[in-house]
Amino acid sequence: MKISIVGAGRVAQNLAIALVKGGHEVVSVRDRTIARAEKLAALLRETAGVMVAVSDDLREVEECVECAIFSIADDALNGVIGDFRAGRDLLCLHTAGSVNMNVWEGCTEHCGVLYPLQTFSEVGEAGAVDFGKLPLFVEASGSGELEKVERLARSLSSEVFKLSSEERRWLHVSAVFGCNFVNALYGAAEDCLKSIGLPLSVLYGLIDETAAKVHRMGPREAQTGPAVRGDTRVMEGQMRLLEGKPELREVYELLSRRIRNEMLRTR
Amino acid sequence: MKISIVGAGRVAQNLAIALVKGGHEVVSVRDRTIARAEKLAALLRETAGVMVAVSDDLREVEECVECAIFSIADDALNGVIGDFRAGRDLLCLHTAGSVNMNVWEGCTEHCGVLYPLQTFSEVGEAGAVDFGKLPLFVEASGSGELEKVERLARSLSSEVFKLSSEERRWLHVSAVFGCNFVNALYGAAEDCLKSIGLPLSVLYGLIDETAAKVHRMGPREAQTGPAVRGDTRVMEGQMRLLEGKPELREVYELLSRRIRNEMLRTR
Repeated sequence: MKISIVGAGRVAQNLAIALVKGGHEVVSVRDRTIARAEKLAALLRETAGVMVAVSDDLREVEECVECAIFSIADDALNGVIGDFRAGRDLLCLHTAGSVNMNVWEGCTEHCGVLYPLQTFSEVGEAGAVDFGKLPLFVEASGSGELEKVERLARSLSSEVFKLSSEERRWLHVSAVFGCNFVNALYGAAEDCLKSIGLPLSVLYGLIDETAAKVHRMGPREAQTGPAVRGDTRVMEGQMRLLEGKPELREVYELLSRRIRNEMLRTR
Repeated sequence: MKISIVGAGRVAQNLAIALVKGGHEVVSVRDRTIARAEKLAALLRETAGVMVAVSDDLREVEECVECAIFSIADDALNGVIGDFRAGRDLLCLHTAGSVNMNVWEGCTEHCGVLYPLQTFSEVGEAGAVDFGKLPLFVEASGSGELEKVERLARSLSSEVFKLSSEERRWLHVSAVFGCNFVNALYGAAEDCLKSIGLPLSVLYGLIDETAAKVHRMGPREAQTGPAVRGDTRVMEGQMRLLEGKPELREVYELLSRRIRNEMLRTR
């Protein structure tokens, strides 16, 4: 497929590389900040030997383009789509977990969503994300569009799921819990360790095993620690310890309660 | 060292195997429930070809034993130690993150702590935890005892840290945030996914990358999602979505606020 990527941020960078690897022709990369578009073009040149056009015009794409993929911040998408002039047969997709497909209304009827479920980093030394088994969630305005989006998605990953905009809301919030909030807890752990001059790296083994363990046995079975044991002496002691860190104390109280309630419900 | 293990739960199982691998002689395994002690003895026989005595008497250990390691639930430790008659030169250690070393007062002066920082599972098909790089935190009643505990710890792992009981409280609470609470969030994510009939496995890639990313760049730099972007439209939408799940809504609100506050403090 001949594709134009609108946006040059973390998702766009990783997706662009995956698209080229998947055999697609990335015709152009567009970003309001031309330097960002140029940076992504340079990345594609270096990692895949591919030359692409760059532009800071987000109002239209080249006439030869069959599919425009909008990979920009969820809260900017509405505005950008409002200004966009879609060609007659152009398939327009966005990659935002939290944005309803109806954002395309008034712009085009040939539209859909391609949501890759991952936390993306700037493509740097660690390289781009491997899309091979990355779950891709697709949706489209009609059966013809859906066929195209599904074919595109399957050329990138073996894990493709159809999901409505309403369903995708639950998926997206689950990702916020499983990724963004988990990461916030890593930060809370780092704060606690700072009190005794230790780096977060002492927890890496524990962090990795916690992630590995949930694959093996699911979160209910995997749970350990004072809350699930109902060890109120330890919990009270830790609450006292956190008196000088009221935000962490609140998180401690709430999540300990959650673990207790879960246990009473399911065991 | 000739060692007796008091307790036969998850920590005891993994530690016993590591001790045998580290060249120590596990003389006996003791548990109030004799069947549990027998199960651990069978495990040592199968995995390491070692025969050990079993007992349900937790009041003393064999005279030849140089070191007794108490690996039992934090809240049971006090009672068991109260009944224990330590031989004159016996080194007594416990492995509990949240228990002060002074729990040994009145029992013995040759004592200490050997706290392995990990979330342990029953040793089953997946095998025992590799102690090679597992952080071990040690403390002892005197310099002679400390030397012995450190030597023992270094025979198991390359990562050995001295830490006082007071400091260990912070370490332990950091592990609760980085492991138990993280796992609770995996459970919350699973709940959200159930609403649309998807299994938690669709999040495994995201969960793993979230853990891997914190090694590479630390939690502040690694943070993504609506809260750190300050995307109030998405956050309000997700709060509405969670109206039927008040517990998750509370967690959502609190951790989103925490991420915002962190960002304002550090960027």
